[in-house]
Amino acid sequence: MARKLDIRLITPVTTRGLRDLAEIAHLESADLGFSHSLIDIGPPSIESEFDEALSVPGTLAKALAAERDGVDAIIIDCMGDPGLKPARELVKVPVFGPSETSMHVAAMLGHRFSVVTVLESVRPLLGNLAKVYGVAEKLASVEVVDIPVLELAARLEEVQEALADRALHAVRHQHADAIILGCTGFLGCAGRITDRLLAAGYDIPVIDPIPTTVMVAAGLARVGLRHSKKTYATPAVKPLVGFDLGRY
Amino acid sequence: MARKLDIRLITPVTTRGLRDLAEIAHLESADLGFSHSLIDIGPPSIESEFDEALSVPGTLAKALAAERDGVDAIIIDCMGDPGLKPARELVKVPVFGPSETSMHVAAMLGHRFSVVTVLESVRPLLGNLAKVYGVAEKLASVEVVDIPVLELAARLEEVQEALADRALHAVRHQHADAIILGCTGFLGCAGRITDRLLAAGYDIPVIDPIPTTVMVAAGLARVGLRHSKKTYATPAVKPLVGFDLGRY
Amino acid sequence: MARKLDIRLITPVTTRGLRDLAEIAHLESADLGFSHSLIDIGPPSIESEFDEALSVPGTLAKALAAERDGVDAIIIDCMGDPGLKPARELVKVPVFGPSETSMHVAAMLGHRFSVVTVLESVRPLLGNLAKVYGVAEKLASVEVVDIPVLELAARLEEVQEALADRALHAVRHQHADAIILGCTGFLGCAGRITDRLLAAGYDIPVIDPIPTTVMVAAGLARVGLRHSKKTYATPAVKPLVGFDLGRY
Amino acid sequence: MARKLDIRLITPVTTRGLRDLAEIAHLESADLGFSHSLIDIGPPSIESEFDEALSVPGTLAKALAAERDGVDAIIIDCMGDPGLKPARELVKVPVFGPSETSMHVAAMLGHRFSVVTVLESVRPLLGNLAKVYGVAEKLASVEVVDIPVLELAARLEEVQEALADRALHAVRHQHADAIILGCTGFLGCAGRITDRLLAAGYDIPVIDPIPTTVMVAAGLARVGLRHSKKTYATPAVKPLVGFDLGRY
Amino acid sequence: MARKLDIRLITPVTTRGLRDLAEIAHLESADLGFSHSLIDIGPPSIESEFDEALSVPGTLAKALAAERDGVDAIIIDCMGDPGLKPARELVKVPVFGPSETSMHVAAMLGHRFSVVTVLESVRPLLGNLAKVYGVAEKLASVEVVDIPVLELAARLEEVQEALADRALHAVRHQHADAIILGCTGFLGCAGRITDRLLAAGYDIPVIDPIPTTVMVAAGLARVGLRHSKKTYATPAVKPLVGFDLGRY
Amino acid sequence: MARKLDIRLITPVTTRGLRDLAEIAHLESADLGFSHSLIDIGPPSIESEFDEALSVPGTLAKALAAERDGVDAIIIDCMGDPGLKPARELVKVPVFGPSETSMHVAAMLGHRFSVVTVLESVRPLLGNLAKVYGVAEKLASVEVVDIPVLELAARLEEVQEALADRALHAVRHQHADAIILGCTGFLGCAGRITDRLLAAGYDIPVIDPIPTTVMVAAGLARVGLRHSKKTYATPAVKPLVGFDLGRY
Repeated sequence: MARKLDIRLITPVTTRGLRDLAEIAHLESADLGFSHSLIDIGPPSIESEFDEALSVPGTLAKALAAERDGVDAIIIDCMGDPGLKPARELVKVPVFGPSETSMHVAAMLGHRFSVVTVLESVRPLLGNLAKVYGVAEKLASVEVVDIPVLELAARLEEVQEALADRALHAVRHQHADAIILGCTGFLGCAGRITDRLLAAGYDIPVIDPIPTTVMVAAGLARVGLRHSKKTYATPAVKPLVGFDLGRY
Repeated sequence: MARKLDIRLITPVTTRGLRDLAEIAHLESADLGFSHSLIDIGPPSIESEFDEALSVPGTLAKALAAERDGVDAIIIDCMGDPGLKPARELVKVPVFGPSETSMHVAAMLGHRFSVVTVLESVRPLLGNLAKVYGVAEKLASVEVVDIPVLELAARLEEVQEALADRALHAVRHQHADAIILGCTGFLGCAGRITDRLLAAGYDIPVIDPIPTTVMVAAGLARVGLRHSKKTYATPAVKPLVGFDLGRY
Repeated sequence: MARKLDIRLITPVTTRGLRDLAEIAHLESADLGFSHSLIDIGPPSIESEFDEALSVPGTLAKALAAERDGVDAIIIDCMGDPGLKPARELVKVPVFGPSETSMHVAAMLGHRFSVVTVLESVRPLLGNLAKVYGVAEKLASVEVVDIPVLELAARLEEVQEALADRALHAVRHQHADAIILGCTGFLGCAGRITDRLLAAGYDIPVIDPIPTTVMVAAGLARVGLRHSKKTYATPAVKPLVGFDLGRY
Repeated sequence: MARKLDIRLITPVTTRGLRDLAEIAHLESADLGFSHSLIDIGPPSIESEFDEALSVPGTLAKALAAERDGVDAIIIDCMGDPGLKPARELVKVPVFGPSETSMHVAAMLGHRFSVVTVLESVRPLLGNLAKVYGVAEKLASVEVVDIPVLELAARLEEVQEALADRALHAVRHQHADAIILGCTGFLGCAGRITDRLLAAGYDIPVIDPIPTTVMVAAGLARVGLRHSKKTYATPAVKPLVGFDLGRY
Repeated sequence: MARKLDIRLITPVTTRGLRDLAEIAHLESADLGFSHSLIDIGPPSIESEFDEALSVPGTLAKALAAERDGVDAIIIDCMGDPGLKPARELVKVPVFGPSETSMHVAAMLGHRFSVVTVLESVRPLLGNLAKVYGVAEKLASVEVVDIPVLELAARLEEVQEALADRALHAVRHQHADAIILGCTGFLGCAGRITDRLLAAGYDIPVIDPIPTTVMVAAGLARVGLRHSKKTYATPAVKPLVGFDLGRY
Repeated sequence: MARKLDIRLITPVTTRGLRDLAEIAHLESADLGFSHSLIDIGPPSIESEFDEALSVPGTLAKALAAERDGVDAIIIDCMGDPGLKPARELVKVPVFGPSETSMHVAAMLGHRFSVVTVLESVRPLLGNLAKVYGVAEKLASVEVVDIPVLELAARLEEVQEALADRALHAVRHQHADAIILGCTGFLGCAGRITDRLLAAGYDIPVIDPIPTTVMVAAGLARVGLRHSKKTYATPAVKPLVGFDLGRY
């Protein structure tokens, strides 16, 4: 009988309470369980390259801890995939980014995909990720709702409507065939957007990055695949000044 | 508790006995089971665009049957992904190709990947698939062992050695960071090639397309994702001459 | 004196009467003649990847017959170029697709080109062909008139107006410099669209795929060029189940 | 009955006797004839961007003269396609470059093509042309024989052998599926190279640019296609200093 | 102490008085001075590929003269970069084009850039330059104001407003992050456009090609960098007919 | 008279003594001076994505300090360009990366360029930077000498020979037209490699990244250009845990 896999979600912000594993509890089974950690040092939320950069040292510390804990795969819970590459260098257990995974899944399910997100400022970042991940020509557009992040929680209803509107715009005017939710904070919103698209006559996949990445990670871990240690060679241990990442 | 998923493998050749589900039985669990079918009309094996084209009508008939059987996902068991696009038009249940899936997984796990296969003649075909799937710039090379297909079974030992040699060549001279086995008939050979690469100092993923595609398909089916019906609109029912595909 | 060339048009549908060689009779000469065949098994019309796939076996049978008849070149009369690659494997006589040929001709005559066609569903198909043919960056847009195919004949006047409108839209808003008619069923409509564009101040080529492909095929046949048998190696003869393609 | 077409070849060098229409006389017919001109000002041969640039004013004068003479198409007889774009601006009669035409024909006939030529110095030029013509990803390699141009005539036998060797190298090591002769001065050498490739087991097209371009130009002229006047708008007549191009 | 550099601007038109070095005099210093020449043969202005082609021989003569004069770098004062490649062949002193330089600078300073210019007819030309220079994917759009060139001087106020409007359009609708003025005749207009963009909330670089190219050229000359003589091999001296370029 | 510019070099490692401004003192003038800082927290050297990630927080603190000091431009002294994007978000003073700058300069000076460096492990990193910077198709190859970094200083002679060998290999076998030194630690080695290439008959630019970037930065600062604040929007000030970057 198959061993139960433990997938570790690392949320790369210091704000408590943003991520609740209950949202993916329906994916647990006799074969699959989840664990979670938040970073200890870094930004309260991620809205820029600056926030991303400062989230990385804390994320790497948690990736090392996850490997020591014996998890089967690690997922970095942010659509900027912060620390994905250095984490893969540090550990041998497979590490996945929701942006990389969602983009490849979207590229498989439809001809072109759009990412719908909140902030204009992540447009270059997502475009660059698509280039590095090798799927830039599959990216139909990045669609932005332009509602301030600090108001997201209070205006959730409005945000979901706006996301659905932008998704519909992408389908109609940018020839998108699939939609990726562009922020892991939208976890759980895919159903509503799918319904709005269906009501408009479009039966297309709306990818909720965390559940999707969790299941791809579990599947690849099950067949023993992990990232290339040729691409991501383990770095030499050198004396770091100002960082204590734990044993590595 | 999660419903047990049924993944249907359709082997698009008429030769009995080539595919044995025992090879992936270790992936079965309380959540996941497999079923299988062969096509009734078509070629005995697939080694050309011609063979592929003639395998499609039979594959489409089996895809329709699989949907009627209520399976959760369909996998076309050939690295040319024959019939992938028309099958997605015909059915709503998700359909996966091992070539498309393996290429996207390889693109996630390493910087660039090579495909190692038997026949020179599939080089353009694989290159074109990489373009259509949007990952052409991630394809480091197609490596060919040049042993006649009809002699594969009798010379299995030699074939595996040759595949490992070509994989090593791709890693050393084409800067490949991951390897895809370029024929679903190589199911089970990944371990040996991995070992040879490790012995030479390269800890890189060797992707066995069928187990990999099975687990990705199961994961995506679990979160309710399937192909875009905007990209793959259901065709109108029209009077076909010379084909009986069953109800569609 | 030059031998008279025989160009064979294979229309890959089973519906009689759709193609009338009279429409290209003005291109016949002492040097050049045309012959025609319809397929015996397959769909009545081509509007999807599914229809395309089922048109291929019949097309291959007719390609083999054409080679036995001693023709000088074969043209597959559909903008999806169904069966182009396997037909090139089966025969040594040159085979041309109107989509491949028109796209390369358009790329020569203007900076970027648009394809104007009827159905939204062929957008991914045409985009993928442009990628495989290597001219994706020359494709300005695919423009769609969105009139049901079954109503085309009855609404020909309206269709032509709509095609001209979309061509004009492509020129003005997508920076198209040349137009390809996106369905071989539009044979003969180029003049009207050219006139509408000229009236709006745009003197640009409108490519009617069948006449254009016929003349390119005749020219290349005259200088003895045909497709590469390295790309399109002749497949081994193997026992097919369910297909009788004639001698190959 | 079809009007006889007159195709004008403009050889953009000042050296008399390099081009002899007898080499393409076998392509003449009741429908098709050729005429020829050399430029009056410019370089004696073309081996650099510098030579090319100085060949353009003379070429434009001859293109204007050709249009006044009522020819049906113009071909610029050099693989750098010097003056192709300004000539298309100046005249409405279609103008073709052998490099552009050969590259598109090669892209149609095989998966990838190589250009075999004499001089290392044209490598960037040919690569840039492939980019501008939109077929860069189809270009497998540029192969160079490295025999001084001034010695070509005296060492013709050796040149042909060297070209065949480089073609074979391109096929075996760069995965070329078709070959383009990279200098219009090689007119007539294709047969020998084809034979050498066949003897080595490769049945692939070897494109002789001038005959190929002549026949494509004739075919497109016959169906009334010419370059886009949106891409190539006719320039305003302005007072030129130092050039007398004739009436334009 | 550093030697004072002499940067030579060659304006490739025959019209006197268009270029006034006073416009860049503020960039002069103890280290850096400018000199200037106009061509003797060629067009009065550059608005087409034809004008460009005819400006090249005169430009090459002036490049040779500049090298004889001992300048440290040469800049060709036109956004079509006419003669850039042959000039680099002829001389060893570094030669820069404002289009090439501005595009690379823009690609460094922002994610994507747009070029705002006057004439629709230069759209293909600028797109092709971006391809050849290797930055095509950074080009967001070419924006055109569509005011006749001959009326530019008389309608300068209106032109500047129109350029600012198009820049704003590019930023808002084409996701441009930087703007290049698409004609060296706009020298000095960048400030006004920058102000308009700032007033609309966009703090982005507006690249004035001549001052930008002057300073990049001076910097690279100071560190001893010049173009590759492998890409731009010095051409053999051959007897030219109809051109007297001076000693080369 | 022009204001004297202050260019700040930030070396993103904690090891004292690696960078000596004397190496670029010959570039100082009445117009141009240099200042320098090392980071306080981070790695002793940069050889991996991990080292890079940990160098970023310290680099950002020094970028903020540099802006407070009133410098005119900032250069991050490492070929991985660590922190380039977040630093551009944090400050308005222009920030340059030697990798981005060198790649664009190389793309201007030759048809294709190679980067010669020490470690196999930076191959994917440099390839990804080329993609993000938009010049991937200009990158001929990354060449690696494979001498352990810790032995570089002790084996400098051997390293320089090896770099020259790899540069020569890139020119001869990868068609490189320009060379970039792939580590800012090679400052001063360009002359030796240039000489070796010249001795072999290749007069091509060898780009020493720090002097080149210094002069480009000075030139662009002089004309008032800086990065786009649309691409690099200033991040909101939020409470960081575990980092004290100074005022921002």
